[in-house]
Amino acid sequence: MDQPTRQRRGLLIVLSSPSGAGKSTIARMLLESDSEVTMSVSATTRPKRPGEVDDVDYHFVDDAQFQALIEGDELAEWAYVFDHRYGSPKEPIKDALREGRDILFDIDWQGTQQLKFAFKNDLVPIFILPPSMAELERRLRARATDSEEVIQSRMRRAASEIGHWDTYDYVLINEDVERCLSEVRAIIAAERLKRDRRPFLVPFVRNLVARPNN
Amino acid sequence: MDQPTRQRRGLLIVLSSPSGAGKSTIARMLLESDSEVTMSVSATTRPKRPGEVDDVDYHFVDDAQFQALIEGDELAEWAYVFDHRYGSPKEPIKDALREGRDILFDIDWQGTQQLKFAFKNDLVPIFILPPSMAELERRLRARATDSEEVIQSRMRRAASEIGHWDTYDYVLINEDVERCLSEVRAIIAAERLKRDRRPFLVPFVRNLVARPNN
Repeated sequence: MDQPTRQRRGLLIVLSSPSGAGKSTIARMLLESDSEVTMSVSATTRPKRPGEVDDVDYHFVDDAQFQALIEGDELAEWAYVFDHRYGSPKEPIKDALREGRDILFDIDWQGTQQLKFAFKNDLVPIFILPPSMAELERRLRARATDSEEVIQSRMRRAASEIGHWDTYDYVLINEDVERCLSEVRAIIAAERLKRDRRPFLVPFVRNLVARPNN
Repeated sequence: MDQPTRQRRGLLIVLSSPSGAGKSTIARMLLESDSEVTMSVSATTRPKRPGEVDDVDYHFVDDAQFQALIEGDELAEWAYVFDHRYGSPKEPIKDALREGRDILFDIDWQGTQQLKFAFKNDLVPIFILPPSMAELERRLRARATDSEEVIQSRMRRAASEIGHWDTYDYVLINEDVERCLSEVRAIIAAERLKRDRRPFLVPFVRNLVARPNN
């Protein structure tokens, strides 16, 4: 039997969490295991670090270029993070939604709020909590790359970010990374099955009811 | 580390579909594999069939008793199906929601609409479509228990029920029962992770933020 085209609408999956809650690990594992999900490439004014590739890791732009993106209404959300500006271009989002691909966003609560304004029905906002602040601090120290001052600053920022947990539809506690990943995967699987995301159902049902012997 | 009590709120899972679309099989497999889900026991005025157990398969009541349930506002939904009345008692629903257990309802679109009035935020409405009407008819005939007249009546009823597919949040096509079951399971897993269903997160986050060294 010929399978009709059954293209769903894409999802905008937001993973927010304080730094150290395990979000990056979960995002990486998700991207590796699900070919329908790609990471959003942000525009940023932050300088390129060694090893980073322009238009792969970020779209590296200067302040004037970033300002032009804002004024041209070309960003779905943008925010200052540690003195640099980061933003998500609108065009790739629209393409992905239409083509049935999912985009993963690693953004904070402010970016999530902005995405909601433009793409409420497409958004899957997930917040990941650490099991405890002591565990969060332990994970930050385990990186062994940050000064004490930076760690304390990240801890304060973490508490502030966590304060916005209740603006997210889904809230997970990352006590075990495999379990947390499987929870994220179940959420994505379910969100893809929502009627609104499956426009092919309209002709499918029309055909079903119109030709009772089909 | 002591695990605090993390009791979620229960779900009211509705599986609706025309007769023959595989709903009963999926419901049975789900109940066998997920101990947190139990089937709603309906009250009905239909006579008990051989092998059925009162208060297990149904609460068998007479017309006057059913009328008293309606007038006492003790039913979350009720409907006529083939000349008999069927309804879902409210009390067990409230108990389950509070105790973090899920209840599975095998009801049609009318019952689902009524449940929405009383329990909108707790409802997970899933509609299961057959792959085609020819396949639906084949499945109905395979039962080999119904007369031609009953089969034709079920086919007309099926077309009518399918007409209400777009009042459901999730709509699945049952082409493969294992796949359809895994889709139902993903939906349930995700719905359990919604913030609103996890009241334990409120004290959890309060504790997390209030005691930064905890």
